[in-house]
Amino acid sequence: MSDKNTSKSEVSAEVLTSPFLQAIIKQIRGQDTYGTYRQWSDDLLLKPFIVTKQKKREIPVDGEIDPMTVSRIMIFYRAIAGCIEAETGLLSQVVVDLGHEGFGWALVFSGRLLLVTKTLRDAHRFGFDSLEKLAEEGEKLIAKGIELAQKYPEVGKL
Amino acid sequence: MSDKNTSKSEVSAEVLTSPFLQAIIKQIRGQDTYGTYRQWSDDLLLKPFIVTKQKKREIPVDGEIDPMTVSRIMIFYRAIAGCIEAETGLLSQVVVDLGHEGFGWALVFSGRLLLVTKTLRDAHRFGFDSLEKLAEEGEKLIAKGIELAQKYPEVGKL
Repeated sequence: MSDKNTSKSEVSAEVLTSPFLQAIIKQIRGQDTYGTYRQWSDDLLLKPFIVTKQKKREIPVDGEIDPMTVSRIMIFYRAIAGCIEAETGLLSQVVVDLGHEGFGWALVFSGRLLLVTKTLRDAHRFGFDSLEKLAEEGEKLIAKGIELAQKYPEVGKL
Repeated sequence: MSDKNTSKSEVSAEVLTSPFLQAIIKQIRGQDTYGTYRQWSDDLLLKPFIVTKQKKREIPVDGEIDPMTVSRIMIFYRAIAGCIEAETGLLSQVVVDLGHEGFGWALVFSGRLLLVTKTLRDAHRFGFDSLEKLAEEGEKLIAKGIELAQKYPEVGKL
């Protein structure tokens, strides 16, 4: 049991160095006008992004989406935009459009080029199995965005 | 007085042949599941899109945006998307993202190409001085969208 806990912490420490997870943390701390999270560890800041399958089943998808969940979705895509900018120099806009039903779009674009297009479903349940999955999903979208930005630089700068 | 009215009607009749205004009318009639507008003239259907400067000043920009106004904004951009499709064959998505303050984005995109990007401000007051202005603004956005679609066909088909 104690062994299991140790190995779990080690994985977490390693994954926390992911540039994408660091970008999320930067987003959260950057918005922390009142210093609410100043004493919080990175690990703790990322915790709400982890929603197990079990927990997801418990979140109803009718009714309004929790504003904190909407804020996390914004942070997720802003962190992606930040990482693409760091690599390509392209400043981008993030638009998250969610209907009452939790369906919608997340878009990241620069000029006339869409760097990220993602349809959202059941946004009430936004979250990832683990920090590894969170990092993986973000890095996949970043890699695709960078690829597009480098392939169509002219469109990205319109 | 009677002369003035006649000349006004003539202008209206002519402007109503605008492909963009016809696309708006098609959008409204297409959504008219219960036949509410079946007996309405085209002219009457377009009337709510005309909001004079005087009327705009009377619409408060605090509080929620009237759902009918949001619906008109959607129809406006869907009509643009429809006209671009008719010319280029590109099917596109329309995303209108409006905050409570009436600020936001209207986006029309196909593949990874943004055919229309428009920042919205004071969306509560969405409307045009005249049918001519409405047609003009739509046709300007359509022309730009077609130009982009033809210049970057590869990006539009991604």
